[in-house]
Amino acid sequence: MVIVMRPGATEDQLQAVIQRVEEHGLTPHVSRGKTQTIVGCIGDEHRLEEPVLLSLPGVARVLSVERPYKLASRDFATGSTIVPLGDKATVGNGHFAVIAGPCSVEGHAMLRETATEVAKAGAVALRGGAFKPRTSPYSFQGLGEEGLQILARVRDEVGLPIVTEVLDTRHVALVAQYADVLQIGARNMQNYALLSEVGSTDKPVLLKRGMSALLEDFLLAAEYIMTEGNANVILCERGIRTFERAMRNTLDMGAVPFLKRETHLPVIVDPSHAAGRRDLVEPLALAAVAAGADGLIVEVHPDPDRAKTDGDQSLSFEMFAHMMHVGRAVRKAVQ
Amino acid sequence: MVIVMRPGATEDQLQAVIQRVEEHGLTPHVSRGKTQTIVGCIGDEHRLEEPVLLSLPGVARVLSVERPYKLASRDFATGSTIVPLGDKATVGNGHFAVIAGPCSVEGHAMLRETATEVAKAGAVALRGGAFKPRTSPYSFQGLGEEGLQILARVRDEVGLPIVTEVLDTRHVALVAQYADVLQIGARNMQNYALLSEVGSTDKPVLLKRGMSALLEDFLLAAEYIMTEGNANVILCERGIRTFERAMRNTLDMGAVPFLKRETHLPVIVDPSHAAGRRDLVEPLALAAVAAGADGLIVEVHPDPDRAKTDGDQSLSFEMFAHMMHVGRAVRKAVQ
Amino acid sequence: MVIVMRPGATEDQLQAVIQRVEEHGLTPHVSRGKTQTIVGCIGDEHRLEEPVLLSLPGVARVLSVERPYKLASRDFATGSTIVPLGDKATVGNGHFAVIAGPCSVEGHAMLRETATEVAKAGAVALRGGAFKPRTSPYSFQGLGEEGLQILARVRDEVGLPIVTEVLDTRHVALVAQYADVLQIGARNMQNYALLSEVGSTDKPVLLKRGMSALLEDFLLAAEYIMTEGNANVILCERGIRTFERAMRNTLDMGAVPFLKRETHLPVIVDPSHAAGRRDLVEPLALAAVAAGADGLIVEVHPDPDRAKTDGDQSLSFEMFAHMMHVGRAVRKAVQ
Amino acid sequence: MVIVMRPGATEDQLQAVIQRVEEHGLTPHVSRGKTQTIVGCIGDEHRLEEPVLLSLPGVARVLSVERPYKLASRDFATGSTIVPLGDKATVGNGHFAVIAGPCSVEGHAMLRETATEVAKAGAVALRGGAFKPRTSPYSFQGLGEEGLQILARVRDEVGLPIVTEVLDTRHVALVAQYADVLQIGARNMQNYALLSEVGSTDKPVLLKRGMSALLEDFLLAAEYIMTEGNANVILCERGIRTFERAMRNTLDMGAVPFLKRETHLPVIVDPSHAAGRRDLVEPLALAAVAAGADGLIVEVHPDPDRAKTDGDQSLSFEMFAHMMHVGRAVRKAVQ
Repeated sequence: MVIVMRPGATEDQLQAVIQRVEEHGLTPHVSRGKTQTIVGCIGDEHRLEEPVLLSLPGVARVLSVERPYKLASRDFATGSTIVPLGDKATVGNGHFAVIAGPCSVEGHAMLRETATEVAKAGAVALRGGAFKPRTSPYSFQGLGEEGLQILARVRDEVGLPIVTEVLDTRHVALVAQYADVLQIGARNMQNYALLSEVGSTDKPVLLKRGMSALLEDFLLAAEYIMTEGNANVILCERGIRTFERAMRNTLDMGAVPFLKRETHLPVIVDPSHAAGRRDLVEPLALAAVAAGADGLIVEVHPDPDRAKTDGDQSLSFEMFAHMMHVGRAVRKAVQ
Repeated sequence: MVIVMRPGATEDQLQAVIQRVEEHGLTPHVSRGKTQTIVGCIGDEHRLEEPVLLSLPGVARVLSVERPYKLASRDFATGSTIVPLGDKATVGNGHFAVIAGPCSVEGHAMLRETATEVAKAGAVALRGGAFKPRTSPYSFQGLGEEGLQILARVRDEVGLPIVTEVLDTRHVALVAQYADVLQIGARNMQNYALLSEVGSTDKPVLLKRGMSALLEDFLLAAEYIMTEGNANVILCERGIRTFERAMRNTLDMGAVPFLKRETHLPVIVDPSHAAGRRDLVEPLALAAVAAGADGLIVEVHPDPDRAKTDGDQSLSFEMFAHMMHVGRAVRKAVQ
Repeated sequence: MVIVMRPGATEDQLQAVIQRVEEHGLTPHVSRGKTQTIVGCIGDEHRLEEPVLLSLPGVARVLSVERPYKLASRDFATGSTIVPLGDKATVGNGHFAVIAGPCSVEGHAMLRETATEVAKAGAVALRGGAFKPRTSPYSFQGLGEEGLQILARVRDEVGLPIVTEVLDTRHVALVAQYADVLQIGARNMQNYALLSEVGSTDKPVLLKRGMSALLEDFLLAAEYIMTEGNANVILCERGIRTFERAMRNTLDMGAVPFLKRETHLPVIVDPSHAAGRRDLVEPLALAAVAAGADGLIVEVHPDPDRAKTDGDQSLSFEMFAHMMHVGRAVRKAVQ
Repeated sequence: MVIVMRPGATEDQLQAVIQRVEEHGLTPHVSRGKTQTIVGCIGDEHRLEEPVLLSLPGVARVLSVERPYKLASRDFATGSTIVPLGDKATVGNGHFAVIAGPCSVEGHAMLRETATEVAKAGAVALRGGAFKPRTSPYSFQGLGEEGLQILARVRDEVGLPIVTEVLDTRHVALVAQYADVLQIGARNMQNYALLSEVGSTDKPVLLKRGMSALLEDFLLAAEYIMTEGNANVILCERGIRTFERAMRNTLDMGAVPFLKRETHLPVIVDPSHAAGRRDLVEPLALAAVAAGADGLIVEVHPDPDRAKTDGDQSLSFEMFAHMMHVGRAVRKAVQ
């Protein structure tokens, strides 16, 4: 922590700041300039997060110096984390993985067909929503446990591990019984009760970035999961909310290389929710590959025009296969 | 719903759109212009939310016409809703209410002292966090049930109804046992499981706007609670996240008069979280009163410089009393 | 400037940073923590803005300590600035001023009528656009010099000083010939050539905040004007662009008390452009008064439904008179 | 234009709306639903932009149907535009072009060296600032005309066409005398006087997207240039301002495929200003290539650590050559 005093701060005001810092067990280093004095605080910065500093008389600004996340930080890790997707696939540290499937599980036949086709095109995991978070209470909310059963059945039939969202702390055990990877959606990225709960399971967690989450908040959400003992967190950039509404969200592509430098966790991209319309999914997916993402999660449907949810942004099998084909070439180009 | 065709759209493409609209039970009205044709869809627009339209060939844009919320809308209500705060106080429809108290319940003595002082200054309800949502897992997470017990004891002693946050569907019954009003925090505004759960109780709900929630999303979150049968929802504007970071959040003051026109629910303002520093709380509180808010929720602490959480934005008793004094004069001026 | 080293930074990397700081004439103060070392730089921080620091090996972050503005800063001023509006009116340091008039000058009769009516209701200056910045090249661009002549004529007839926008460095001399106050619009807030040019005149400048301008950028734009020798700058908050599009802009009400603490310049609010619709103008205007603004600039038209530009957000004479009446009561309440 | 009436709107209110639409020469098509009535307006929508509609009694919402840009729209063009960069290079319609060079022209030797090296690595045009827009008036403002002369001299020596920014309407003729392409910076994207002025020259214009410009605003800015007769506009996405401040700007990668569908103009990307730090430039550049951009504009400096401006985000020759090498492979992969 660095405390910047106001130009006209008095010696008494400075001493009060120094005392406050010392009270919390840190060592203040005072640097006096011509117009401004700054106090560097050496020690465990975390202890100064709660104490009032900004409101002390004479204080102009308080600047954090340390990253607030630890377990998620690359600074404290050796190498990059590889997260398992079921038994056979992995993501991270050079292992590139594509997760694909419908927005919602609508029934067995459509899910089985989708799983078969996306596997053929190169996907290594199947996504599908059983519990759906919807902006409107009047929208389709998913098949619930029946959807989970269908997912599990298709896993057995096709052999792809399954990724599905959990919305409620009370459902974590249930969903974990069926899923290979638990997904936390963007709207729940700061649902700390839910983060802690999935952190207590032994299932990997695919954590989506919240619509207005700073990258620092995103890593702190991962930290919530990791502090419970679950180190298998996959970060997923899916677009943020900005003033631009021409597309559903603004894909923050810079987040990919930035996060790769900040954290050892795998970073994947969801081009479907960013684009909001299917013709923009492939260019964004390819861009993510080129930017160094560790994987993709993409919505695919046997008949996108008839999908129950997110049809506008779902790819057909043909479009998905094309995306995978070009994506492999891009991946090869950047390696 | 209005569907706008591309300038060069063919007759076949138009017919496919018409058919899709009719399939879902709406009546298409086609208006042909020189360069563009539009299709107005008469009927229950809600049925066209899921079906794919934007991706149909020849479609340029799809525009929603109806408000997606119903129960929360002023269009379908008679008069404004008055929400009870315990037995003696109310908010809405001309009843102005100030809720005040510490960010966190830190102990019995400090809470009792705060309750006594804010009541003296004119507050009609006591706020205080027992379960705290914190950005970092390493921060103080609240006293939990012990905090609830302290709140209930102080209610008995001082006579103010209590408002406290619930974070987890599993705690709703517990918190509802103690609280007069359940608070849903900004980070949980789209935690739909939690919204439904508090909607099933008979306690009024104070719903905070999410950091990146459109006002439409905000009203849809209220709708989630109301569709479960709980009509007592208080909307709380507390600042949104924008590019400006000089203050903790950007208080969207326009939301107050806008919401007052859109919904019959009471609208209050939290100037503390918007400002993030105590010297800006009073001007924002007064502005909210002048803009027509139905109430305020304000953080107050016996010794803000020593508060366990949010000390920088907590008012002292003296500052709170001053704010209340001027606030009453402003309220009188605008009535 | 404070330079934060990465946890694993080497001694050589630290020495390279120290050397870079010394090269530019500042004195480095090194504080070594257990995991992180920080370098406080004492001296003229401005000299370290251009030099590369962030990219030096081992550097984690570079934090600015000083405010980048000087002339605009309250730290270096004595008291608050009072800016003249023509001969008889002033704004700032307790002098509250309302500037009102049509978006565009449409003709002599309408302007004269407006001036007469707004003066009667308490406005002390007349606004009106002769050169209009329009998002579309196909929109009405204003009457140009003819508009300026009409403004000057109405000033003579009614006695209100005139505020009008200048868009082009080549027009500054011309507009300054007619206007009492030069307005810089939001879109030109970082048109530095224009800022310097109006800074070279002896006319006060009403500077509107850019749609995505940080408050720091806003004060730096004022600084551009002031470094040319023109100290009479009025800052105008008029709403910023955020994800929320329910209203035209998001009025950043916190900017008012924040700026009042940071700068000695007068701060006024434009509720018309923030609201974008006339029924929301009064509540936002009253809120601005309650928040401590030094004045308002409001769009008023004799027949808003027939206004050539911005009719939706223009007040009628009656609405304006009502706003002024309540506004005076609010101002009295907060003084 | 589609006008949506409020649920309880009266027949008289509807008739007033119909009359207003007819007055401006459009034909209203009324569609009456159970709860809501909508009025589709057939004809030149542009005529309804200024007239007041939203404020008429009974009106709920007014929705635009037509794109407000015409010349820039793909709907009204045949094929994609190819813009010349000097005599030998072009950009657009499959012609991929990289423009590279220092942020500022600092002198002849450094510029010549840079031009030689970037040409060797595959750049087809040289960028370099002579007039610099700086957020602070205390920062280096560029060499002015001397910088232009150096650029022209290096063009003669090395053979690359030059791209340089113009900031002031009064300098357009001067800069056009030296430059092959005139650049309009992000801060001037809505400086309409400047747009019109460069639209009157015969030089191609590289137009950067404003920090808070909607893609619609961006295309309207291009329209300003094109309505003056200059059809050679290159659009440049360079990042927008969002709540995320970990990087200098948020690169809106979706803008690339979106714009490619909306307009026939070439779309390039500036990864340097988006990233703000050199280690993130290459991944963003590669992503832009993969997303389908028509080119890149990149900051390169002989000794980035000693650059006068933007050193943190400037690439060394070696980094640039590496980026070009991988970029070619990515381009091949996506073609």
